[in-house]
Amino acid sequence: MSFNDPIERRGTHSSKWDMMEKLYDVPQQDGIAMWTADSDYATAPCVIDALRRAADHGVFGYMPIHDDYLNAIQWWMKTRHNWDIDTSWALTSQGLGNAIALCLDLWTDPGARVVIFTPVYHEFQIKIEKAGREAVTCPLKHTGDSYVLDLEDAQSRLDGSEQMLIWCSPQNPSGRVWTTDELRGIAEFAARNDLILVSDEIHHDLVFPDHTFVPMHIAAPEVEDRLIVLTAASKTFNIAGQRTGNMIIPDAKLRKEMQHRLNTLDYKPAALSLQMITAAYSPEGAKWADAQIRHLDQNRKTFDAAIATIPGVTSMPLQATYLAWVDFSGTGMSYDEISQRVRKSARIAPSAGPDFGPGGETFLRFNLATQHHRVEEACARLKDAFSDLQ
Amino acid sequence: MSFNDPIERRGTHSSKWDMMEKLYDVPQQDGIAMWTADSDYATAPCVIDALRRAADHGVFGYMPIHDDYLNAIQWWMKTRHNWDIDTSWALTSQGLGNAIALCLDLWTDPGARVVIFTPVYHEFQIKIEKAGREAVTCPLKHTGDSYVLDLEDAQSRLDGSEQMLIWCSPQNPSGRVWTTDELRGIAEFAARNDLILVSDEIHHDLVFPDHTFVPMHIAAPEVEDRLIVLTAASKTFNIAGQRTGNMIIPDAKLRKEMQHRLNTLDYKPAALSLQMITAAYSPEGAKWADAQIRHLDQNRKTFDAAIATIPGVTSMPLQATYLAWVDFSGTGMSYDEISQRVRKSARIAPSAGPDFGPGGETFLRFNLATQHHRVEEACARLKDAFSDLQ
Repeated sequence: MSFNDPIERRGTHSSKWDMMEKLYDVPQQDGIAMWTADSDYATAPCVIDALRRAADHGVFGYMPIHDDYLNAIQWWMKTRHNWDIDTSWALTSQGLGNAIALCLDLWTDPGARVVIFTPVYHEFQIKIEKAGREAVTCPLKHTGDSYVLDLEDAQSRLDGSEQMLIWCSPQNPSGRVWTTDELRGIAEFAARNDLILVSDEIHHDLVFPDHTFVPMHIAAPEVEDRLIVLTAASKTFNIAGQRTGNMIIPDAKLRKEMQHRLNTLDYKPAALSLQMITAAYSPEGAKWADAQIRHLDQNRKTFDAAIATIPGVTSMPLQATYLAWVDFSGTGMSYDEISQRVRKSARIAPSAGPDFGPGGETFLRFNLATQHHRVEEACARLKDAFSDLQ
Repeated sequence: MSFNDPIERRGTHSSKWDMMEKLYDVPQQDGIAMWTADSDYATAPCVIDALRRAADHGVFGYMPIHDDYLNAIQWWMKTRHNWDIDTSWALTSQGLGNAIALCLDLWTDPGARVVIFTPVYHEFQIKIEKAGREAVTCPLKHTGDSYVLDLEDAQSRLDGSEQMLIWCSPQNPSGRVWTTDELRGIAEFAARNDLILVSDEIHHDLVFPDHTFVPMHIAAPEVEDRLIVLTAASKTFNIAGQRTGNMIIPDAKLRKEMQHRLNTLDYKPAALSLQMITAAYSPEGAKWADAQIRHLDQNRKTFDAAIATIPGVTSMPLQATYLAWVDFSGTGMSYDEISQRVRKSARIAPSAGPDFGPGGETFLRFNLATQHHRVEEACARLKDAFSDLQ
């Protein structure tokens, strides 16, 4: 378990490292990339071994979605999340961005209103708008050191024409793990407003000790006739570049509609993705994922302790995900000044809070899925960049 | 160059080998799979090396479409096909089946009529019908030992409401390499009838000595305002399982429309596909592809010589592709009897001729991209299965 082994990602066509200078004006040479949600350490040895076996075989012909792959998905949901799924429920998308785009394309009309709770993964709104739909942004309530739902406020923002709710659980960027009661509230909200409920659960494996993730389908099985659950091995196993994800659809009618769309577009996953995911969703993969959580737990503690020393800056305590959501509002500085100090003085490229929608105006999101020494270096640079506040 | 090294594909989730018994009722244990168009030998060492380097790196995060990849595509088209393309013309699809589906989705209306020349790659008609469009099948004229165009006949089958022509060059299943004059005829036909011209050139690298492939864009540059060219490294380098292909679109308006569709669906290729294709489209890859042609040339000669000894059976002389198109009409047998003898007696699973549309009724298509000894074994079995005709 070599989460701290140095790996050079610069010059490997990595989005996160090789596009940092262009997009964030943070120097390639000694900048720290903490934006895109992938990890800087190697994936599980069982996944790499699967790739080596494929290289040894040398033939990369057609491969259908097969039972070993589907059984591995089923096994993972059962053993890691106590979630019983039928293998027939698991359709395969070209990653979860594509899955969300397909859901919008299939189950909403052009111009339709689609509900999201912000701040939230910025791609939700981007996907909605690219598809020619309209995002209805309902703010989460920032209370104490976390977010809670305000469904009464959300209800007041709807006009009855909404068709879909795209939900994020565990929540990105705040790292909230929603309780069963909260999930039931969302499910009832979706049912009451007759919304297709797309539950993006991509971070379900990245949950810290003392918190328990509950799949939407377990919290509210009664809404399965409107439920699409998105999961993937991509964040857990750092294989997001393979762009392959699960659309788990318990309802036969919805599933048939999506399968027909996939057939019409002739979407079938890459053979190597099937092989890597089958290897990942295994007992060896599970052990590696557990070790990863311990590594990330250490990273977030180091990071939060450093942030706590900077007056006016607060890191939201993470219950899940490796994405630290940091509020700079207490500094009294403008977003531009905050961003400038982080990018130019600390030479760190985090994700921009405002991109996550209403509620993110004073925030930056820092990706902690890296070597521990790099987190320490980032902490030192941040403290230095805001040392005048001491 | 180890095209004859034995490689066991059974039990590797190979569509071609592991679905043969289920789909064709040919025994898994000693059947010979000669249907799906992938190869039974290992890909080029440079492609395998790229995969090994990726495995050594161990990080599989996000990777954008990058210049090394685009430059490799451009280099390949220039050096192998004397075709100058701008790197901006090359969009990436999820394989060519997906590319055809996207073209139908984007540039034809529901219910629209789409022209194909049969017999032709069976997926054209399947894609057209899955998309809820209607196929207008125009027969190629079977003359001597090959096919020629009959554009007058084709014109008589159109009613003026057609929107697209899906063309195949080099032709699958006949292996025809079209002449510049023939290509210009097709281009004029498309222009006269105001059709979007989708030219599937996936087999462009698999052309035998004494034949020269001409890209549609070179033959008829004046139709580039309606031209979509599909190519891929998938057949050439036996990486079809990676499901990644090129949509080369010289026209800015058409390209913008497709790019927008790809953006809306959030389609981006897998990182490993980018790495494998970049490695394939290289001087080392070119050398391997040349050696492959010599191997396939030997295979087709062995196969054709054997078929020539069976009275009433004719293998169309291949100008390109590794797919032998064999006519059994001279035996006077029904298709069912032919198919039964090949599958049950010879224990070979070829592709069914009738699936390729009008003109394929008495044919079977045999995939020769395999070890030479397996072609010899198939020849012996076929001769035996029809020995009563001697």
